[in-house]
Amino acid sequence: MHLLKPFSFSKRFPETEVIGSAFAGNNDNLIPLSFGFPAPESLPVDKMTVATEAAMKTQGRQALAYSGGSGPKNIVNWIKERSKLREIIASEEKIMVTAGSSQAIDLITRTLTDPGDEIWVEAPTFFGALKTFRLAETKLVSFPIDEDGLRVDLVEQELITRVNKGLPLPKLMYVIPNYQNPGGVNLSLARKRRLAELAYEYNFFIIEDDAYVELSFDGTFSPAIYSFGPERVVYLSTFSKIIAPGLRLGWAIGLPQIIEKMKILKVDGLTSVYVQEVTKNLLKQMDMDEQISYLNSIYLPRKNAMVSAIKQYFGEEVSFHEPNGGFFLWLTFPTHIDTSEFLDAAMIAGVSYIAGKHFFLENEGFHHMRLCFTFCKEDIIHEAIKRLADTYYDHVNSIQVIEEVN
Amino acid sequence: MHLLKPFSFSKRFPETEVIGSAFAGNNDNLIPLSFGFPAPESLPVDKMTVATEAAMKTQGRQALAYSGGSGPKNIVNWIKERSKLREIIASEEKIMVTAGSSQAIDLITRTLTDPGDEIWVEAPTFFGALKTFRLAETKLVSFPIDEDGLRVDLVEQELITRVNKGLPLPKLMYVIPNYQNPGGVNLSLARKRRLAELAYEYNFFIIEDDAYVELSFDGTFSPAIYSFGPERVVYLSTFSKIIAPGLRLGWAIGLPQIIEKMKILKVDGLTSVYVQEVTKNLLKQMDMDEQISYLNSIYLPRKNAMVSAIKQYFGEEVSFHEPNGGFFLWLTFPTHIDTSEFLDAAMIAGVSYIAGKHFFLENEGFHHMRLCFTFCKEDIIHEAIKRLADTYYDHVNSIQVIEEVN
Repeated sequence: MHLLKPFSFSKRFPETEVIGSAFAGNNDNLIPLSFGFPAPESLPVDKMTVATEAAMKTQGRQALAYSGGSGPKNIVNWIKERSKLREIIASEEKIMVTAGSSQAIDLITRTLTDPGDEIWVEAPTFFGALKTFRLAETKLVSFPIDEDGLRVDLVEQELITRVNKGLPLPKLMYVIPNYQNPGGVNLSLARKRRLAELAYEYNFFIIEDDAYVELSFDGTFSPAIYSFGPERVVYLSTFSKIIAPGLRLGWAIGLPQIIEKMKILKVDGLTSVYVQEVTKNLLKQMDMDEQISYLNSIYLPRKNAMVSAIKQYFGEEVSFHEPNGGFFLWLTFPTHIDTSEFLDAAMIAGVSYIAGKHFFLENEGFHHMRLCFTFCKEDIIHEAIKRLADTYYDHVNSIQVIEEVN
Repeated sequence: MHLLKPFSFSKRFPETEVIGSAFAGNNDNLIPLSFGFPAPESLPVDKMTVATEAAMKTQGRQALAYSGGSGPKNIVNWIKERSKLREIIASEEKIMVTAGSSQAIDLITRTLTDPGDEIWVEAPTFFGALKTFRLAETKLVSFPIDEDGLRVDLVEQELITRVNKGLPLPKLMYVIPNYQNPGGVNLSLARKRRLAELAYEYNFFIIEDDAYVELSFDGTFSPAIYSFGPERVVYLSTFSKIIAPGLRLGWAIGLPQIIEKMKILKVDGLTSVYVQEVTKNLLKQMDMDEQISYLNSIYLPRKNAMVSAIKQYFGEEVSFHEPNGGFFLWLTFPTHIDTSEFLDAAMIAGVSYIAGKHFFLENEGFHHMRLCFTFCKEDIIHEAIKRLADTYYDHVNSIQVIEEVN
């Protein structure tokens, strides 16, 4: 009836590759080691029920209204107190509750950058952040990590080069300091301090994405980068890893003038006040130190199971840093391997993972792989690694056959 | 210690004026007629408690995980069925659940426009949408409304002029067709059909923001603009007005290729699966037609109370369209009046409203005022209008005194 003319959509959409396999979800027998899910049995179902009843009985109408009851304020207070563990001293006007830390990354990016500005990142880094930076049409530059986290010395070297050559400096540096996603490493205290100094000296902001900090197997924390540079760091964390991802509750801590601007950009209205009211009650009845011990009592044996299965089935074929917390193992295969080439086969064999290339800017990281050790039980993990090794060696053999034929 | 250099923030921030008064929140005796809140006593506290318990008992772990249980799918099905009332036929891949319809407006805007593109709007229109469009750095053009809604004839005239002069056409037209915010008017069926035709002919998209459609005092619906142009309309609605704003759940219906792009931009992750699981159970136990009748049994007497109080205290001084549903009355004062000039005085006297200018692009609409009739009970509304009239006539007298002195 109507003649449909071609419409030119926004030019902001980059080429985005779907992360995962075409076979996702088609295998009932699949063991997912791909996405970063917490252990399902760790989710506090009973406590949430109690917390919701309490929220409804005492403040139900406010919880269901736009404005909310005391939930938001109490959560901000909780964040303020808990942050002191990382030597973060922040008053209320520096704290903002967001819809998960993904939203916080988006809001900071759009607050501090314009299209064409540079954001510097770690290589490898969280692909969700890379997607957000690309959608904001920023230019990305990456720096390697080692056992002590981001190579801050290389960052400094590049800053000096930029100044010497009169080239633009970055507006933002995105860092995951603890149990880095995917690398599993922790940024050393000396590097944290130096990075904060560089931010002042070269006038850029640091996004300190600290999603995994609480999940420390030995219960130790080091001070946040924020503690060394509160005027040039925006600190992020989340309830997703320590309570439940389904809540979609995270937070940002930064200069009041930045938090104000982020609030202007937060056009989805207030973060669900209902969820905040429930979470407030949950935090009230929950001893967070106990909750963390409980999570670690689940996660440490799972990490150990994954490490020993990898040693058993892969031997010297892969190397990795053994993380002291967090969610992930980051495997390094021989350099000629591209882990994305046997993902479909792995999915058919019943195990999923994320191929290394997704954690890099471009044409890099093919011989890496991220595995999540928190979601599945030990025996399941063992089985998954066995399937993965079978698939991998089949792949290696098929490459050799092809090479011989050629 | 550190020398803090000036940092240049993103240039995207427009000059935004805070809507409201400096006295907000400082008067315990304040009757709020400003923001669009539903009646607190209408919020389904008991049903939410039951719905949450059911969600936790049957699907608690999925509800608290990222991936969720059947909540999202069931809500999409509910939306699909309910939309048929407005003659919207939409398969699942055309439906997206968002964090309120404010988020949907943001996602569509960034999907369909680049900075500098034109968005056409009604005058007056919802200030939240204007803010979103400004943050997306689009150019805005407005068209007046009358008793039958947007003056589609003037839109057509401008489209013809643009083509004749070789000037750019709009990418988007933002319309609130039912119980327009703030005008309270409904777009006629003939204009809906014509507007959809224009969208095909001149190749722009329509955002049909239908937040208030269910709140019809006589229970009648007319077909959505979407039904006349499914390939050039993105239809939005929300649970905020019919269940509870605190849930922050809305939805968008549009072409699959647009919904896909909106999902790419939705970097806050999935909309809280916990809230979706609870809402699913709520929808299951709730008869929506009954819920709407119940809401209208509260809102119609409130609207009537506001209308009669205005007639009593303002007489012929103000004029307004009497809406047949929705949340708002839109008052027109004599043209020399600027309603923002006596807002502080009104707040001190204990009544709040939103000044007309906020609903227009610039330097317009000063002699209008938006009042919300849904939040307060009849006797409170009566008292609020009395306070408003006292404040207004004091203001008018003070202007006259100044004029006489001059």
